[in-house]
Amino acid sequence: MFVLNIRVMRSVLIIGAGRSASSLIRYLLAKSETENLHLVVADLSLALAEKKTQKHPNATPIALDIFNTEERRAAIEKASIVISMLPAHLHIEIAKDCLQFKKHLVTASYISDAMQALDEEAKKSNLIFMNEIGLDPGIDHMSAMKVIDEITSKGGKMLLFESFCGGLVAPESDNNLWNYKFTWAPRNVVLAGQGGAAKFIQEGTYKYIPYSALFRRTEFLEVEGYGKFEAYSNRDSLKYRSIYGLDDVLTLYRGTIRRVGFSKAWNMFVQLGMTDDSYVIEDSENMSYRQFMNSFLPYHPTDSVEIKTRFILKIDQDDIMWDKLLELDLFNPNKKVNLPNATPAQILEKILTDSWALEPDDKDMIVMYHKFGYELNGDKKQIDSKMVCIGDDQTYTAMAKTVGLPVAMATLLILNGKITTPGVQLPIKKEVYEPILKELEEYGVIFNEQGVPYFGYNPDLF
Amino acid sequence: MFVLNIRVMRSVLIIGAGRSASSLIRYLLAKSETENLHLVVADLSLALAEKKTQKHPNATPIALDIFNTEERRAAIEKASIVISMLPAHLHIEIAKDCLQFKKHLVTASYISDAMQALDEEAKKSNLIFMNEIGLDPGIDHMSAMKVIDEITSKGGKMLLFESFCGGLVAPESDNNLWNYKFTWAPRNVVLAGQGGAAKFIQEGTYKYIPYSALFRRTEFLEVEGYGKFEAYSNRDSLKYRSIYGLDDVLTLYRGTIRRVGFSKAWNMFVQLGMTDDSYVIEDSENMSYRQFMNSFLPYHPTDSVEIKTRFILKIDQDDIMWDKLLELDLFNPNKKVNLPNATPAQILEKILTDSWALEPDDKDMIVMYHKFGYELNGDKKQIDSKMVCIGDDQTYTAMAKTVGLPVAMATLLILNGKITTPGVQLPIKKEVYEPILKELEEYGVIFNEQGVPYFGYNPDLF
Repeated sequence: MFVLNIRVMRSVLIIGAGRSASSLIRYLLAKSETENLHLVVADLSLALAEKKTQKHPNATPIALDIFNTEERRAAIEKASIVISMLPAHLHIEIAKDCLQFKKHLVTASYISDAMQALDEEAKKSNLIFMNEIGLDPGIDHMSAMKVIDEITSKGGKMLLFESFCGGLVAPESDNNLWNYKFTWAPRNVVLAGQGGAAKFIQEGTYKYIPYSALFRRTEFLEVEGYGKFEAYSNRDSLKYRSIYGLDDVLTLYRGTIRRVGFSKAWNMFVQLGMTDDSYVIEDSENMSYRQFMNSFLPYHPTDSVEIKTRFILKIDQDDIMWDKLLELDLFNPNKKVNLPNATPAQILEKILTDSWALEPDDKDMIVMYHKFGYELNGDKKQIDSKMVCIGDDQTYTAMAKTVGLPVAMATLLILNGKITTPGVQLPIKKEVYEPILKELEEYGVIFNEQGVPYFGYNPDLF
Repeated sequence: MFVLNIRVMRSVLIIGAGRSASSLIRYLLAKSETENLHLVVADLSLALAEKKTQKHPNATPIALDIFNTEERRAAIEKASIVISMLPAHLHIEIAKDCLQFKKHLVTASYISDAMQALDEEAKKSNLIFMNEIGLDPGIDHMSAMKVIDEITSKGGKMLLFESFCGGLVAPESDNNLWNYKFTWAPRNVVLAGQGGAAKFIQEGTYKYIPYSALFRRTEFLEVEGYGKFEAYSNRDSLKYRSIYGLDDVLTLYRGTIRRVGFSKAWNMFVQLGMTDDSYVIEDSENMSYRQFMNSFLPYHPTDSVEIKTRFILKIDQDDIMWDKLLELDLFNPNKKVNLPNATPAQILEKILTDSWALEPDDKDMIVMYHKFGYELNGDKKQIDSKMVCIGDDQTYTAMAKTVGLPVAMATLLILNGKITTPGVQLPIKKEVYEPILKELEEYGVIFNEQGVPYFGYNPDLF
């Protein structure tokens, strides 16, 4: 007897093969046989696409310039589903093509106004445009909504929601005084917190923190096995209030996690004005690190840059803050900035990258921490939910895993008809978070939820 | 014998009869007989125009809405010369009409790009558009250029130029802990220093100060008979470098004068985030002063707003900073903000206006201070030039005198053919500053110039 086995391969177009695409591609290739998938991995750099697909029989690496409309549309037309891992502002043309050619779309980016505007049309065509399904945004939405839904389905009333996330260096690679290395876009780290006051609610009171005070108003967090962390407030704590159904909640706070002491030290740069990205430093190209430092200090004919720094920042002679500055080689008169027409923020980023780049064997770490306060049957209760993920290496980093795997899983769930709600979506529905959170556990992304006493928002009791 | 004396009155159109027009109108009316002037004083409020002209036979008050093109053009067409005392952004349509009807124009405002764009056309028609001829800008340009021209005409080489100006309360009315009252637009005081880092040059080195450090990097100034002052850096110290011919100068600094201690206290508002004008406070209308204060402090179930303020700002129990806050009644739970959808800056302005409004008998004071360092015949020298002007009352304030009188004098000099250079001008030419500075002395605006040892920029030697 003769069996003709004809498989219809489903074509997944992945646009952008950068750092965050590694785990995503590996996951889908591993499933490609059982799930009948063929991956088209498209990048401006064919070499990068080839590197990520490793000559896998179920993958085709292609060079694609998304600004070439014809090429882009040809690639999208052939796909069964499209994943865009490009920077957020580049999704919109792809999304419009997806509408025209009736393709689902998955991204890990915040929903822009332009993307949101496509909602109605996507619904009409029964298309799913799933966004914000990476780490943050992404896993934060899913892990938060799972607990919130559990609480409210039991009749509980939410009182407090605090959510923290940070991309850090893994403990085994944590070997500098800042307890920090760049595991993601350094520019975003340098500019973090700028652009307006942080806004949140504590016990029903709106609170505002200006940028200049942001890194001095931190919260502390403890994660069993990993020690103590701190968090500074995000600008946008109220952004998901309605989306999460938390309009009446008394406390709503979102923060960024760092190791304790980072924020106090970072604040030195903020106070000196070194994180400013709004103007260009005169003759930045030929400036030394020491001269850059001196630009933010008063002139003096004989006082050293060192003593002026200590004076302005009130750094005692035995303060660890000083060693943190020294570690960055900021007072070196021989190292040149070598960046023409650079802003303070760009120069600082360069100086930090000298010190904070990951070494070849370094691993990264993602920490996420939610607190859910609620009232149930007259009792006030709290659940703390914590997740730590360590990277495998510098390709399959914790960041690449936590950003890429949910994207990959959502893609497959859409293809297999398990996620069905059409329109411009984010992953707050049970049909999305339940299967993905469950499958993520197989990959080491595990939330540890535990009941703790409810204190409300009262740091003194912790 | 019979003599027929026919006078041709020259018509001066003054648009805007607000606070800064009082001394200007009085000056021109006083000269109206000898100089054959007829003033047309135009304001949106006829009552205000009438009040300022006092039924003087040589003045006609009119109501004028400058957005009514027909009315505006009719008024300008009839004038011999036009003075605009409106806010800076409202000059441009008037300037265009002046071009069409071939009228000279005088304003006390900074030259905008739109105004500068009219330069060529003004020159073609031999029209003088004199701007920046109030106090600051205005008297600062003139008093600086006079000394700079004297130094360079003797063959001196400029090394240093520092220029400071402040609108303050007169010593006899200086009776609050801040040594400050609003003598000019309060909003500008609240927003002072925002919008980017301050930039200047000290001994050939560019220096940058972020807003959050601006009020902690002050300079001290001594004015004989008036005591000690301080100054914080203006954003725009390099703006006039080329215009003043100071391209090679080693030190260039412009600052705003306050009484000593003001900046340190003001910095409390900056650090708390109360000067922010970029977002609206939730439910600002129904908020008390105390709640406003508490918005910028961490939540605590029992700690008072007072102790949290002291803690965050590190105010010792016997620190005068505390009394300055108390004087403003910032902790009052009963006083309501009463401003819907207000920004922190708007609310702060309102609170300050409660305390810092001038009393009916209060007088204001203008202080200007220039330092000129130069090298002549191998010797390094310095001239310090200082001016203090006290207001007569709340109509003929020091601000109204120093802003309005130079405008009035320039207007007359243009009418009488003494100022002749056409185009969009500012008062840096001898034909302008010489007669005006001389005549200003008759009105008590007197610069005291004295040679002092040259220290370069070295605050420790002062």
